[in-house]
Amino acid sequence: MTAPVTLDPVPLLESLIACPSVTPEEAGVLSVLEGALVALGFTVTRLTFEGDGSYPVDNLFAVRGNGGRRLLFAGHTDVVPPGDQALWTADPFTPRQAGGRLYGRGAADMKSGIAAFVAAAANIPEDAGTVMLAITNDEEADAVNGTDKLLGWMAEQGYAFDFAIVGEPSSAKLLGDSIKIGRRGSFSGQITVTGTQGHVAYPEKANNPLPVLARVVTALDVEIDQGTEHFPATNLEVTTIDVGNPVSNVIPAAGTLRFNIRYNDLWTPETLSEWIRLRIVTVDAAGAEIVFESVGTPSHAFLSPLSDDVATLSDAIETVTGRRPEYSTGGGTSDARFVARYGPVVECGLVGSTMHKADEHIAIADLEGLTAIYREFMQRFFDRDA
Amino acid sequence: MTAPVTLDPVPLLESLIACPSVTPEEAGVLSVLEGALVALGFTVTRLTFEGDGSYPVDNLFAVRGNGGRRLLFAGHTDVVPPGDQALWTADPFTPRQAGGRLYGRGAADMKSGIAAFVAAAANIPEDAGTVMLAITNDEEADAVNGTDKLLGWMAEQGYAFDFAIVGEPSSAKLLGDSIKIGRRGSFSGQITVTGTQGHVAYPEKANNPLPVLARVVTALDVEIDQGTEHFPATNLEVTTIDVGNPVSNVIPAAGTLRFNIRYNDLWTPETLSEWIRLRIVTVDAAGAEIVFESVGTPSHAFLSPLSDDVATLSDAIETVTGRRPEYSTGGGTSDARFVARYGPVVECGLVGSTMHKADEHIAIADLEGLTAIYREFMQRFFDRDA
Repeated sequence: MTAPVTLDPVPLLESLIACPSVTPEEAGVLSVLEGALVALGFTVTRLTFEGDGSYPVDNLFAVRGNGGRRLLFAGHTDVVPPGDQALWTADPFTPRQAGGRLYGRGAADMKSGIAAFVAAAANIPEDAGTVMLAITNDEEADAVNGTDKLLGWMAEQGYAFDFAIVGEPSSAKLLGDSIKIGRRGSFSGQITVTGTQGHVAYPEKANNPLPVLARVVTALDVEIDQGTEHFPATNLEVTTIDVGNPVSNVIPAAGTLRFNIRYNDLWTPETLSEWIRLRIVTVDAAGAEIVFESVGTPSHAFLSPLSDDVATLSDAIETVTGRRPEYSTGGGTSDARFVARYGPVVECGLVGSTMHKADEHIAIADLEGLTAIYREFMQRFFDRDA
Repeated sequence: MTAPVTLDPVPLLESLIACPSVTPEEAGVLSVLEGALVALGFTVTRLTFEGDGSYPVDNLFAVRGNGGRRLLFAGHTDVVPPGDQALWTADPFTPRQAGGRLYGRGAADMKSGIAAFVAAAANIPEDAGTVMLAITNDEEADAVNGTDKLLGWMAEQGYAFDFAIVGEPSSAKLLGDSIKIGRRGSFSGQITVTGTQGHVAYPEKANNPLPVLARVVTALDVEIDQGTEHFPATNLEVTTIDVGNPVSNVIPAAGTLRFNIRYNDLWTPETLSEWIRLRIVTVDAAGAEIVFESVGTPSHAFLSPLSDDVATLSDAIETVTGRRPEYSTGGGTSDARFVARYGPVVECGLVGSTMHKADEHIAIADLEGLTAIYREFMQRFFDRDA
């Protein structure tokens, strides 16, 4: 048994930021992480997944301990491109401390979460329980050969977990003011209305599909539900309407709209498809054909059970910050949707207000606070088993 | 004074068809016409107009006589491309007679009208009155440097007319069953709705313009009028709606629709613009901005007075065919819109069912019938002055 050590998350975060790991370039970042984890007694497995229409992606799985309660930390080392470097005060991949802040691409999203968790794990005795990390280098882009396949591989290998934390920035304004206990689902589709092409001078010989398409848009522009206890109302946005008819004297044959629905725990992609079909039926098609199809792979909504472990995490946050977190389900999707298929998961991380922006940064005090939260949580989480 | 001569329209038409005068290529066609007209005592002026964003176009003006009543014949020698030549039985620019028909690109639209008029004019004494021809080689495409400028030039030169015939195919099924006494106007515009771009996961921070755009389409999808004595109802068609947003997770900033209105003699482009603005005002803009602009140059509606000359043309048709023509204002636009600015004009020509198609052709008997109609009309038209 290795004795617990103290590990400062700041230099580890600086080392991670110094690797320009723009999706899907690994750029040494998983190797830096592997070195830190091996030093703390973790067994590390590097996995490259590929295929399914996307580029190959480097992933890392680490485990320490093989008994007791099982905690999974999930996250990603890839970052979005820096964008216009002229908007940055200094090089985005040269970590820089100034005014109590640490600057660099990935500082908030989410190399800091990883550094904080690794630093926190350093203080946890090896025999306290099983600690696992599932880290991908593609969360920001396709997300096809990342967490989805990594969690599948873990299940095949028999690596189950009792509770999972995704280290994405989950705080709204202050460290720990919010954790995410679920995520809305996302469902995209398209609707094509086909009429009969013709010359505008002879409308009686044509059937313009566009007034019908407009009525479909209006039919979709209604309240879908009023939200649930932990979720906002399901919301549909028409994202594009396209015909592409360049000439002014031709009635087009067809027009297409696309939409995206962010939905709560009242719905599945299947029930939403049925809702769309019922809305279309209300439209006067005026002889045109209306065809609906889903687009891409929908992500299901999930809501983690409000278990004792969630309460323990809230207690840990209150101990460190003096505030209990709000339980949120807002925001975009994250890899937590993949983790949720295998067990309860919450997102708990820093304030993300500068993520994806120029001069991305975090407060160093927040990094230390998050490390303390993770440490406090793990001590209580594993203590339940003691 | 030259004695009236007899001229067979068939070989003249064949010579015109043999010139591959696809817009704007003159390909010798105006030279053939010039030769025929000079032989009949016409004074011919060739004019090339250019500029205003279009290619240079060859035009021809011819006049015979300088007193009495003044008749203008307007038309075009250019033809649309033959398209897929494999669909033609023989070369589109090699005139071919078969089964009482004459085949070739431009046979119907509208080299036959020119050949018939020239042949008819051959029988009219030079001192009967003033006969003019205004022929362009661009009616089928831009129509910027053709009849519009040719009629303007004529006005500058003092060439006014009492009545004009455009020799476009105007008959519906049988020679002379219909003449066109007016044309609807054409007006195109676009409406752009601008909201606020945002992420679909945060609709409260965005303002989707597309439901508003849909409501604008619906607001335009109403009866505009019920038609007038000689015109069908004014009709608006939305011809395209385009956003061009490729990603499913972004609410777009703006969307644009385009429309075309074919309108009757109740309206002008100005009153239609006002009608559009009033329709837009009925739409709940939900905070979005709705901007309407006209597109391109509108063509005004026109209706020729149902004068004695129109009655004389109907009499001539009845004498030749045994049927009086219907007075029509249907169909697309033609160069008659430019002629109408300077005086009364009707369209009177062959059956156009094969125009713009493969194996375009006319019945030779119809060509001879149209020649007889033009001749009979001119004799009566000029006789009013005798």
